Amino acid sequence: MLDFNIEGLIPKNMEKRGELVLNEYLKEIEDVFNHRKIPENGIDDEKIKLFLKFLSMMDTDKDPKSVRIGEREARTYSKIHEELSSGFCHGIGRSGNLVDPQPKASGASIMYALTNKILESFFKQLGLNVHAIATPISTGMSISLCLSAARKKYGSNVVIYPYASHKSPIKAVSFVGMNMRLVETVLDGDRVYVPVEDIENAIKKEIELGNRPCVLSTLTFFPPRNSDDIVEIAKICENYDIPHIINGAYAIQNNYYLEKLKKAFKYRVDAVVSSSDKNLLTPIGGGLVYSTDAEFIKEISLSYPGRASATPVVNTLVSLLSMGSKNYLELVKNQKNSKKLLDELLNDLSKKTGGKFLDVESPIASCISVNSDPVEIAAKLYNLRVTGPRGIKKTDHFGNCYLGTYTHDYIVMNAAIGVRTEDIVNSVSKLEKILL
Amino acid sequence: MLDFNIEGLIPKNMEKRGELVLNEYLKEIEDVFNHRKIPENGIDDEKIKLFLKFLSMMDTDKDPKSVRIGEREARTYSKIHEELSSGFCHGIGRSGNLVDPQPKASGASIMYALTNKILESFFKQLGLNVHAIATPISTGMSISLCLSAARKKYGSNVVIYPYASHKSPIKAVSFVGMNMRLVETVLDGDRVYVPVEDIENAIKKEIELGNRPCVLSTLTFFPPRNSDDIVEIAKICENYDIPHIINGAYAIQNNYYLEKLKKAFKYRVDAVVSSSDKNLLTPIGGGLVYSTDAEFIKEISLSYPGRASATPVVNTLVSLLSMGSKNYLELVKNQKNSKKLLDELLNDLSKKTGGKFLDVESPIASCISVNSDPVEIAAKLYNLRVTGPRGIKKTDHFGNCYLGTYTHDYIVMNAAIGVRTEDIVNSVSKLEKILL
Amino acid sequence: MLDFNIEGLIPKNMEKRGELVLNEYLKEIEDVFNHRKIPENGIDDEKIKLFLKFLSMMDTDKDPKSVRIGEREARTYSKIHEELSSGFCHGIGRSGNLVDPQPKASGASIMYALTNKILESFFKQLGLNVHAIATPISTGMSISLCLSAARKKYGSNVVIYPYASHKSPIKAVSFVGMNMRLVETVLDGDRVYVPVEDIENAIKKEIELGNRPCVLSTLTFFPPRNSDDIVEIAKICENYDIPHIINGAYAIQNNYYLEKLKKAFKYRVDAVVSSSDKNLLTPIGGGLVYSTDAEFIKEISLSYPGRASATPVVNTLVSLLSMGSKNYLELVKNQKNSKKLLDELLNDLSKKTGGKFLDVESPIASCISVNSDPVEIAAKLYNLRVTGPRGIKKTDHFGNCYLGTYTHDYIVMNAAIGVRTEDIVNSVSKLEKILL
Amino acid sequence: MLDFNIEGLIPKNMEKRGELVLNEYLKEIEDVFNHRKIPENGIDDEKIKLFLKFLSMMDTDKDPKSVRIGEREARTYSKIHEELSSGFCHGIGRSGNLVDPQPKASGASIMYALTNKILESFFKQLGLNVHAIATPISTGMSISLCLSAARKKYGSNVVIYPYASHKSPIKAVSFVGMNMRLVETVLDGDRVYVPVEDIENAIKKEIELGNRPCVLSTLTFFPPRNSDDIVEIAKICENYDIPHIINGAYAIQNNYYLEKLKKAFKYRVDAVVSSSDKNLLTPIGGGLVYSTDAEFIKEISLSYPGRASATPVVNTLVSLLSMGSKNYLELVKNQKNSKKLLDELLNDLSKKTGGKFLDVESPIASCISVNSDPVEIAAKLYNLRVTGPRGIKKTDHFGNCYLGTYTHDYIVMNAAIGVRTEDIVNSVSKLEKILL
Repeated sequence: MLDFNIEGLIPKNMEKRGELVLNEYLKEIEDVFNHRKIPENGIDDEKIKLFLKFLSMMDTDKDPKSVRIGEREARTYSKIHEELSSGFCHGIGRSGNLVDPQPKASGASIMYALTNKILESFFKQLGLNVHAIATPISTGMSISLCLSAARKKYGSNVVIYPYASHKSPIKAVSFVGMNMRLVETVLDGDRVYVPVEDIENAIKKEIELGNRPCVLSTLTFFPPRNSDDIVEIAKICENYDIPHIINGAYAIQNNYYLEKLKKAFKYRVDAVVSSSDKNLLTPIGGGLVYSTDAEFIKEISLSYPGRASATPVVNTLVSLLSMGSKNYLELVKNQKNSKKLLDELLNDLSKKTGGKFLDVESPIASCISVNSDPVEIAAKLYNLRVTGPRGIKKTDHFGNCYLGTYTHDYIVMNAAIGVRTEDIVNSVSKLEKILL
Repeated sequence: MLDFNIEGLIPKNMEKRGELVLNEYLKEIEDVFNHRKIPENGIDDEKIKLFLKFLSMMDTDKDPKSVRIGEREARTYSKIHEELSSGFCHGIGRSGNLVDPQPKASGASIMYALTNKILESFFKQLGLNVHAIATPISTGMSISLCLSAARKKYGSNVVIYPYASHKSPIKAVSFVGMNMRLVETVLDGDRVYVPVEDIENAIKKEIELGNRPCVLSTLTFFPPRNSDDIVEIAKICENYDIPHIINGAYAIQNNYYLEKLKKAFKYRVDAVVSSSDKNLLTPIGGGLVYSTDAEFIKEISLSYPGRASATPVVNTLVSLLSMGSKNYLELVKNQKNSKKLLDELLNDLSKKTGGKFLDVESPIASCISVNSDPVEIAAKLYNLRVTGPRGIKKTDHFGNCYLGTYTHDYIVMNAAIGVRTEDIVNSVSKLEKILL
Repeated sequence: MLDFNIEGLIPKNMEKRGELVLNEYLKEIEDVFNHRKIPENGIDDEKIKLFLKFLSMMDTDKDPKSVRIGEREARTYSKIHEELSSGFCHGIGRSGNLVDPQPKASGASIMYALTNKILESFFKQLGLNVHAIATPISTGMSISLCLSAARKKYGSNVVIYPYASHKSPIKAVSFVGMNMRLVETVLDGDRVYVPVEDIENAIKKEIELGNRPCVLSTLTFFPPRNSDDIVEIAKICENYDIPHIINGAYAIQNNYYLEKLKKAFKYRVDAVVSSSDKNLLTPIGGGLVYSTDAEFIKEISLSYPGRASATPVVNTLVSLLSMGSKNYLELVKNQKNSKKLLDELLNDLSKKTGGKFLDVESPIASCISVNSDPVEIAAKLYNLRVTGPRGIKKTDHFGNCYLGTYTHDYIVMNAAIGVRTEDIVNSVSKLEKILL
Repeated sequence: MLDFNIEGLIPKNMEKRGELVLNEYLKEIEDVFNHRKIPENGIDDEKIKLFLKFLSMMDTDKDPKSVRIGEREARTYSKIHEELSSGFCHGIGRSGNLVDPQPKASGASIMYALTNKILESFFKQLGLNVHAIATPISTGMSISLCLSAARKKYGSNVVIYPYASHKSPIKAVSFVGMNMRLVETVLDGDRVYVPVEDIENAIKKEIELGNRPCVLSTLTFFPPRNSDDIVEIAKICENYDIPHIINGAYAIQNNYYLEKLKKAFKYRVDAVVSSSDKNLLTPIGGGLVYSTDAEFIKEISLSYPGRASATPVVNTLVSLLSMGSKNYLELVKNQKNSKKLLDELLNDLSKKTGGKFLDVESPIASCISVNSDPVEIAAKLYNLRVTGPRGIKKTDHFGNCYLGTYTHDYIVMNAAIGVRTEDIVNSVSKLEKILL
């Protein structure tokens, strides 16, 4: 597309070297267009910017000869606007459909189509053969999107929700105006979980009432709440032929979750929702929705009313290109080691404090019981500039995801993807200072 | 907060001059913090960036001494991410509430609070004494938010929709799972409108059926569809005590709409939704929701499930600061003149082509009837790089917002805020080339 | 060079539109490479940046496959370094010659060659058919370069300098180790000038002494010092066959100077030195050297010891592309009007104050006599934040360029290219406040 | 200086946290102003940019209330200009003196004063108690500056130059119009050096001729040319009371050179010139001049005719802040290891090829003799994208710095500061492919 004439300005051999270097530089960009896969090695920021620049220069608002006479023509007032939208001032989507190409925005449309293809290649590398879209909204809103699509396609009108104490999914259900049937958790040692039989019973009850239930299961959550047994739930949903949406907010970062997803996908899973920021280290604002059911993914994209900011999608694309699969797998490995370290340190600490290193099941987070007010301890940690830990009282039904009294007061800490070793060490040592 | 020592490096009088210039430079930024109003004169991009920088530097992910041990700590992989989010990597909102301060993100929380205050001062300048929030989602999704809040607060379960052929609001209703009762349009000369009696009758019918209706009226739309008579609708809604949401996508740019809004606000208006890109010339992705009812605005912000990208809100803030009230009023004036010019040119053209300059009522767009296929004409215009015009056949129920056969085939063109005079002239002259 | 594959991602017609817009966007860049002339219309910043990016991507330090084993490989420590050098980290020049292509830096070499070609086309538009180079050093240092080349090529060892009280050229002579013979100024009414006969006599004397003189004349200076009569000096230099360098620091902005240059070039002018910042509105740091004598321009470029920062040259290139010839001519026109306004205002002021509007000859600056200490008046103006005016006492030999006592105490003010009308008005009104 | 009001927008404890984080962020910037030393740990780019922003905002061209009526007011045409000059559009220096504060540019003046202070602290850390200035010109031009100052202060008129085959210093001498007396090199095994007795004799001869010589010695050069024995030369210069300038282009990166400098400074050294790009990894364009003689450094800064681009100085400042002393020492350590590796690999290679690993003395570069045309070998390496190695024939007087025939044809390679281990390995392996 681009062809410029440098002839005669410098000696021929230098001309050739210049073109060679430029072509080498541009090759990685061309590869993204040609291969449409997550690159093995990450691409540097300068190149990614150039790549995005080429795309945004295809939108009609960049056409110096265009005559713009609509009511919405991506006129922007400030240069900052262009920067914040990576030049995609027309956003993404068409009034009808999130993934529909927008005639005024060829570049943004290509960018979005490419993002989804690259995202799918990323999932494939992780062992998930799925269809996927990057959404311009966070996890909670993306769950709303899936539920609304389930209602549209299958007439679902009630959501069976194995209780997890997270406001976003609960509000996601309320937002789309569906009723929710909670299934209570039970205690198993230190662990809190929802028996699959109870879920099946809830489904039966709703069906008996003449309703059309769907299930919103939770794969990733703070311990002591276990992951839901999504494989068994998927089997049940298959049996009863009802939709199954999985909240897997940070599921992509650990094999524990990925393995469960792989198995569940053999039965009934309509869509999984993950967060782009919690897994791909983007700023907050984007979601990932994926499924083996291409039709349902299409339905989801059809549910979005209107166009949306391109930025959250661009952030997802930037992450995929910037990391490359190699660095992502490295991050995944580091997360595993960080979790191991966190476990060791908290275990040691529990011996010193006389607390208990709780016997919970999570590949990300760990819990230690404490003998004084855990909420105050968390507040002290915040004042020591430790962000992230939660302190939960045994009587806090919401915090524990358990409607009875839990076995211990405790603190929960995360070794999520991207955490630095020094943060693991410092957080435990600051906790030690408070406890001892 | 900042105090740096330049003593002894240059002569005292130059030191003082340097400080004077720096203070003068920073004063506009301090004024934004102190006055919390839209500035009269626009602020230049460099200063706005510095202002945003100060704010984003208050978020905990910028703290070099912080220990980050949560599952979501605004870790970002690429510098591009920071640029695209203006440094607000934590986004806005808390899982509970869009406008709730987020403890990990003091800066973003202040930014959002300031944006809303400045937005309110902007509305005040336009003569609307309202409470307002900038939403991180477009018009369609913002309407969903309002409807969902109406259901939560008032139990509304059916939306009375005076028919306007716009997919986004229709999907917004479907998205939140509410039923819709269309009220048909009728013809009055060239104009298409919905009689208020029919709306009242629809309300009555729904109430008789035991439902709890709310009204979604349309203030801004393509002619020949008139604006709904929102003042009379507001009176009716007050009488029947039912919520009234107004879709005023591009209502802020013209006094014709603002006057209607001022009057309607005396009766029942729960919320008006406008677009940030259509009025404030931001990239696509943000909305503006405003109302005299502070409680309901709060309810709306409570409906959003989870956190959201800060970028659409930052874009709105950037527009307000970058324009200042003076430039905005100038743009408003220019829009009025552009519309006048468009009318004249289309009127002239109609005389040459034997078409009719349709007698419609819109302060933004104008229609001219054509003697050949209007859809083909629009396609030809697109190929001539004119974006925005719509070509509608008389038999196109959706395009005309009219379920019968309309009086003419026609083309509609917009002289919206920000349009350039040359674009008005060129679009009509290109249309002339096609028609003659 | 660039060819990327977007096939199959969006509908064919949108693909084509995207490519059309992209190509349109890139066309202006391709035109610069093809035409190698100053564009008529200015090019916007985004495009200029992309253009510079393509060039800097040809330098070997951008080659991901390069193996760098020299002692100087344009390794930079910070991203800021790349920004400040526009990616041209290898600088320009080779140890031998400023304009020699550098094998490690094809891109910077092309950039420099293009800059000089575009600069020459710019001079051509102004009516000067000259060879030209943009230098990476300011006016003073560029004069040193010319003098050193004159010594090398013609054996010049003494500089005849019609006295102008400017430190930079005097230091430029001293820097290259040449002796200077001042030729004194005389008074003609309010004007200070150097008679050409005296210059001729000085030349004769030096030749008699066995020296090889060259002349450094001054075209642009603060009044009451007149421009040297460069046409007559050029004739004399031709007669005596001695080099003639013209200091035309801000000569390009006004036809008064350009006309003199055109005439002088018919006789002996070896090189003219102008400032890039004073004429082309770049930051300080670059020079322009031009002459009808291609050989001598080559000699000048050969005199520079070593490589240099690319930035001042890039700034010159950016100005030429950013302005385009049309805007430059507009600025030239505005300067003329600004000078007229300044004259009127100062004339009026002189009537009010009983001072005299001095009868001097300058197309840029004007003088008004004052009745109190002019140095104090200038200091007061500085405190009122007026930068630029000079206050000169009649006894200040240096300030007046006159070794006797001048006729008046006075203030001199400039209406140089780029000055704003409001600055003209405000400066005179602030002066009035001080004087009355 | 900055004080903004965030009161009442978010809860008090979050306000405090926000201010705490902001203050922590700004502290590193305040520390630079307060301590005026190279920081121990490098400062990140974002902070350095903010620091530079604060400074550039003190220049008068940023004053919205300024009235600009001079002929040079840092008016710039494009935003790119501001970026390339880091906002210091007024450049540095005054017509009289490079380090003089410029009344229109308090910020740039502070920036330059700070740079020099930080540079001195950097030298102090390396064990050199010197006065120093960062120059806005490269090594060659900086040598010119020193020589011109030596002429001005001491009347020096001829430069004694122990022969090193480098065009830049030779042109630097010619540029300022001084004569040069070369002192020939002799052979000592594989090494080429200049006997100090010969230098002393050259001095004597010039003094006998009635001249006032100064010495330009070479500390850093490609082997087989040894470093000059600067300690003995410094003693001789002290005895004869003549100026001594040292070309130490890349002297700061290795203790071998630093130790020599420390000793030489006990005797007569008027100035040392080093390159900012070769030592501090900036883009090409800046120099470092340092000496124990504060007076002479002042004289040097006085020699520069006019103002200069701020960019090369800013680049030096950015390097010092960005690296911090810790990273610099790390780079120094790595350079040493890289050199060791290069020696080993070339030694091994020589055994395979039957060449000789030459017995030369350099802490940076190594030589290996070859049996075929070394110039062709170097060209082949360039084609294999190896930049930096030099191939020198035994008969090349210039390349060898030796006027007779050298002992071998050879290739020389550098392990300079910043070189990557992989580049060392790849360059030798590519050389092996060519040789075997």
